Amino acid sequence: MIRQAIYHKSDVPFAYPLNKDELHIVLRTASTDIKRCYIFYRDRYDWMGKFKVKEMFLTQSNDLFDYYETTLKLNKKFVYFFYLISKMNEKVFYTESGFYEERPEKSFHGFFQFPYICDMDVFFAPKWTSDCIVYQIFPDRFNNGDKSNDPENVRPWGERPEPTTFFGGDIQGIIDKIGYLKELGINAIYMTPIFLSPSTHKYNTTDYYKIDPHFGDTQKAKELIDKCHKNEIRVIFDAVFNHCGYDFFAFQDVIKNGKDSKYWDWFNVYEWPIKTIPLPSYEAFADHEWRMPKLMTKNPDVQEYLLNVAEYWIKEVGIDGWRLDVANEIDHHFWRRFRETVKKAKHDAIIVGEVMHDASPWLYGDQFDSVMNYPFKNALVDFFAKRSIDAKQFNTIMTEQLMRHMDGVNRAMLNLIGSHDTERFLTMCNGMVVRMKLALVFQFTYIGVPYIYYGDEVGMVGGYDPDCRRCMIWNEEKQNLKLFNFYKRLISLRKENEELRYGTYKTLYARDGIISFKREYKGKSIIVIINNSSKEHSILLNGVQGKIDILGMGKIKIKGKIISLEPNCAYILK
Amino acid sequence: MIRQAIYHKSDVPFAYPLNKDELHIVLRTASTDIKRCYIFYRDRYDWMGKFKVKEMFLTQSNDLFDYYETTLKLNKKFVYFFYLISKMNEKVFYTESGFYEERPEKSFHGFFQFPYICDMDVFFAPKWTSDCIVYQIFPDRFNNGDKSNDPENVRPWGERPEPTTFFGGDIQGIIDKIGYLKELGINAIYMTPIFLSPSTHKYNTTDYYKIDPHFGDTQKAKELIDKCHKNEIRVIFDAVFNHCGYDFFAFQDVIKNGKDSKYWDWFNVYEWPIKTIPLPSYEAFADHEWRMPKLMTKNPDVQEYLLNVAEYWIKEVGIDGWRLDVANEIDHHFWRRFRETVKKAKHDAIIVGEVMHDASPWLYGDQFDSVMNYPFKNALVDFFAKRSIDAKQFNTIMTEQLMRHMDGVNRAMLNLIGSHDTERFLTMCNGMVVRMKLALVFQFTYIGVPYIYYGDEVGMVGGYDPDCRRCMIWNEEKQNLKLFNFYKRLISLRKENEELRYGTYKTLYARDGIISFKREYKGKSIIVIINNSSKEHSILLNGVQGKIDILGMGKIKIKGKIISLEPNCAYILK
Repeated sequence: MIRQAIYHKSDVPFAYPLNKDELHIVLRTASTDIKRCYIFYRDRYDWMGKFKVKEMFLTQSNDLFDYYETTLKLNKKFVYFFYLISKMNEKVFYTESGFYEERPEKSFHGFFQFPYICDMDVFFAPKWTSDCIVYQIFPDRFNNGDKSNDPENVRPWGERPEPTTFFGGDIQGIIDKIGYLKELGINAIYMTPIFLSPSTHKYNTTDYYKIDPHFGDTQKAKELIDKCHKNEIRVIFDAVFNHCGYDFFAFQDVIKNGKDSKYWDWFNVYEWPIKTIPLPSYEAFADHEWRMPKLMTKNPDVQEYLLNVAEYWIKEVGIDGWRLDVANEIDHHFWRRFRETVKKAKHDAIIVGEVMHDASPWLYGDQFDSVMNYPFKNALVDFFAKRSIDAKQFNTIMTEQLMRHMDGVNRAMLNLIGSHDTERFLTMCNGMVVRMKLALVFQFTYIGVPYIYYGDEVGMVGGYDPDCRRCMIWNEEKQNLKLFNFYKRLISLRKENEELRYGTYKTLYARDGIISFKREYKGKSIIVIINNSSKEHSILLNGVQGKIDILGMGKIKIKGKIISLEPNCAYILK
Repeated sequence: MIRQAIYHKSDVPFAYPLNKDELHIVLRTASTDIKRCYIFYRDRYDWMGKFKVKEMFLTQSNDLFDYYETTLKLNKKFVYFFYLISKMNEKVFYTESGFYEERPEKSFHGFFQFPYICDMDVFFAPKWTSDCIVYQIFPDRFNNGDKSNDPENVRPWGERPEPTTFFGGDIQGIIDKIGYLKELGINAIYMTPIFLSPSTHKYNTTDYYKIDPHFGDTQKAKELIDKCHKNEIRVIFDAVFNHCGYDFFAFQDVIKNGKDSKYWDWFNVYEWPIKTIPLPSYEAFADHEWRMPKLMTKNPDVQEYLLNVAEYWIKEVGIDGWRLDVANEIDHHFWRRFRETVKKAKHDAIIVGEVMHDASPWLYGDQFDSVMNYPFKNALVDFFAKRSIDAKQFNTIMTEQLMRHMDGVNRAMLNLIGSHDTERFLTMCNGMVVRMKLALVFQFTYIGVPYIYYGDEVGMVGGYDPDCRRCMIWNEEKQNLKLFNFYKRLISLRKENEELRYGTYKTLYARDGIISFKREYKGKSIIVIINNSSKEHSILLNGVQGKIDILGMGKIKIKGKIISLEPNCAYILK
């Protein structure tokens, strides 16, 4: 047994409550190393009681690790436990203080302990996330619904964008396209920032309380949200709290009044009087040349200001959540206060961080519900778009990502394949639509929230910013309608099949460019098979007998357990 | 290479800031598996910059794992990184998305990232903890300084205690013994609860704002703390916030007014009208027969009440910290608020949780500074008192404990060997004082705060509660003065040698009942060798030449690198 691979910790994500009396437990071992695993558990204060025993079940498996899981129904809220792990002629007891050849005594002091399920610490993502499909809109580029509010220097729709180009897209434009979004089938919109800002992207906020007049006003935002809600579409705003724009009132006050400004410590000024040329003498976000002043969220006044903003838009226009820009450069302390504020204002509002790497430090339950899942995107780019990693590696990356988080978090993850900050997926596929389709099958049948970056659904292409922010193509002749219909099909399949929304995930096959997995829910199951290679393959899979393909991307032959797969083709077997 | 053993995560305790621009990094590998390890790192926004390279150094090693560490000095507050790990003919690059045979490209999206050092998230334990030696007092049993406040039913000093016996110990008694404590050399007192309560242990609080009159009053508490402070002794109070006593005003109000009480939701009442017989119809701590109502810390009113108590005693009498009873059954949310309140009231107050198992979920920097280190006690009992585990296993347990926490946390840990909730250490040694002495050498030369349970220093014995809570022995004829002097010697050695207070820890030898380790600080080092066996041994150790034993427990012979050890003997070589 590879003891160094065996791991449990009585904390997220290896132990966490699902509710007031159910505790979910995860144990990791080396891949295919052990045969069986049992958990022995007992109420913590039942000093003399008998241990209950439960077998743990293998849920995820990859090249490196196997994961065994179970859920304990507790009589009381507290529990002691240890594991018995066995293979052929070997068995070992695993405890918080290590490995033992003999079963720990009743009074053993090294048991794992989950000391108490505290209501306050039970994590719930909003219930609606499992049913959710998000559509990201970059407002200047989605649709121009009101020409009267266009910026002066607006460029013709469809021209290639530069970093500072305006195209006149606005909130009315989104309202006008609610029908389109309904037809596509999405049920949540995330918009990049819409507050007053001189830029086209509006990530340098001038006024957090004012909708940019080129987009509309508060009334118009309210109208959008009301109409969306009537159409069962939720709306998420973008909170840019890491930094503000140069024109933000507090920063302008500091520019004007220097150290006498009452806002002097809202920022980190290196040198007084404050300079902005040639380089800022204050802390600015990322690249100093962008000059966006970093907000000192350690300052209680800054906290109050931003938390009021967060609450205001929920109460004023009824948004359903916040996406948090550069969330990983703001202290955890602030995000915990943010969570309290937001959930108090709307208990089922979603909080989505922008964290492009492993986001688990923000996803232990006390801060975000979800993040924009860039590690998901990266793996899909490598496997489906570029085919630079094989199926085995893809499976290892994906299941390791999954096991970093609580199940509830995974189900709230915004599983994107592209955004306003990446090349478009189809571009990364070198225009090969079939590769994108295979990735989409994965995206829409995986655990988590499928996420569409505006225009991807009609085959838009584009390199890095600003090229990935081209104007939405509305001319049907220039849209890839087959791709649009493929999206619609996947969305319906997800909506029609609970397994895809609420089911467990388990990899069945991961080699030769083929990834196959099962989604299971309440005794029903769906098996997805994606042949992400240009070769025909025949593979052997349990559980496919009697199932039929509900996707219809290609033809499948099932003989007993043997399945013949066409090249570059995916199947959803039910 | 055992890849499953290789682990890093960009979060506590594998990555954490030491201050505004230093990031501490830890990488784990299988024991003695690899030869070298390098970290490649670069500012996150320096897209095209060159990676810097630093070798990681082996700091801890045990039966299962090796730990490599380094501290990165950052130009900016954010960093990308990956590792190169090598052994003989094998090398591998380790990233957040797994293992690669080739060096990741500059634009690789799977780098580990520490996105930003936020001031608010930098953990500091109070500076004084490294210099601290704590003495725990159970007030009813320490010293009776004022007979006029004795309970009516007080029993003669020294009689065997029952669970409900009173002996009349009080705050004046502690004040009278400050000279004794100074002579011993301790510089902090932790007292079990002293607030109004009908019991002898006072863990069922009647009034959080009133000192129990059998112990004294607020004025007397203030006098104690002032006198302690004049003698450079800090004072820690006990906060029993998980539950209150049956007589607590709010609970009595609920008893009286039922659901109409304004305190009805301060508790978890299962059934109205509230019943207490035969079993409580409300949630009570641990064993229902104790009837202590659990306080609902999810209720903001309860939070406010308890946080006010925490602040009050810091401001009113100037305590230096709180020890938190049953800390592991209260939500993390409450403890985060508690930390804010306490640190605001006194920035260098210490927060010590009572968590008897792996306490890392409370020690990520956002809640406690420290805990009563029961896992430390357990390992010392098994190795030194009972000799039921060998030196190798002891070393594995100890270094695994160490690596669960940030260095700053380890230095604030209250390393006890017994308390009012355990058998006395000497009793667990079956009265063999030499075994206790060997444990003490370890305790006073290890990383963390040495902790003395009153009376241990004069050889007191006792089984589980109430027997471990006997009256302090003040009759010198009945005290083990040799043991007392051994304590004094160890305390002086710790005070005289910075290495023992501030140094790094590294195991040098761990087998045949022998544990040896080095403490190193600013180029100076101390090597501790403990022969916890009844056999003579000769061992080979680097770095002992020229050093002399400053403990004087036995005789040591050093010939070159070979050291001859007497049975049951310890050496502190400087």
